[in-house]
Amino acid sequence: MTNTATATIVSLEEFLIYWQGHRALTRRVIEVFAEDQLFTFSAAPPMRPFGVMAWEIHQVSELTLNGLLTGKWPEPDWREGVSKDRAELLKAWDALSGRLEREFLKVDLAFFPQTHTLPWGEMTGWAAAIYTIDNEIHHRGQGYVYLRALGIEPPAFYER
Amino acid sequence: MTNTATATIVSLEEFLIYWQGHRALTRRVIEVFAEDQLFTFSAAPPMRPFGVMAWEIHQVSELTLNGLLTGKWPEPDWREGVSKDRAELLKAWDALSGRLEREFLKVDLAFFPQTHTLPWGEMTGWAAAIYTIDNEIHHRGQGYVYLRALGIEPPAFYER
Repeated sequence: MTNTATATIVSLEEFLIYWQGHRALTRRVIEVFAEDQLFTFSAAPPMRPFGVMAWEIHQVSELTLNGLLTGKWPEPDWREGVSKDRAELLKAWDALSGRLEREFLKVDLAFFPQTHTLPWGEMTGWAAAIYTIDNEIHHRGQGYVYLRALGIEPPAFYER
Repeated sequence: MTNTATATIVSLEEFLIYWQGHRALTRRVIEVFAEDQLFTFSAAPPMRPFGVMAWEIHQVSELTLNGLLTGKWPEPDWREGVSKDRAELLKAWDALSGRLEREFLKVDLAFFPQTHTLPWGEMTGWAAAIYTIDNEIHHRGQGYVYLRALGIEPPAFYER
């Protein structure tokens, strides 16, 4: 039985599994696009291609992991998607997933309720971390419409 | 200063604010559609109209609040969107937001790490609660593409 007095909504370990599950699903979405469409297709122009959104997700995730570990949240150099090379995107993606796996459990729990200054405003560590994942889910959901418009079956949402 | 020993990633109070923020944003998305398009338009058929997705979000959210409070997670009667009347959808939406505000803080923290049997599998209370919000963000992101395809400016994602 769990002791009510010490129970929490989510532990660091569960949050890591949750975040990595979303990263694995987004990776499958990146992979299922045809490479030329990943960086060119939009279901509703001028919305950005999914590959550009995926680079944004990568940059925000990297900023968030660094911020949670160091307290520094510098504005990323967005560069509109960095490159149009899927292999380069996936390499950066996997490197960050590896860092997350090795480093996330070192985050001080006290960091979550504290307020931090991000490029997009003041917020708690919790708000910063969950906003990063929310942003990933939001854009990935858009990627699902792109895939459907292209006649491609997206990966199952509930598989992580 | 926060005491590290007792700090948690997110408190019940913060989780409630987080959930309600998403509900407020989704409500704005429901409102910004033209009513006939809310229940008929799809940017990538056979994807469902956003109004049908919004009813699903409502039903899953209701199931989740009930489950967290009672331990019972009965399969909803989906009925493909219940009705095509936006006023009826918004009325149900607001009633549930009111219940959430009054009842969510009564959820026993011990419920989150415990495993529960939902219609879509066994999972912890944390996984059930966050999956509900993930599903809302995912479908709402799809609604953003629908709005862009219709030439309608969606509400700002970062405003809650």
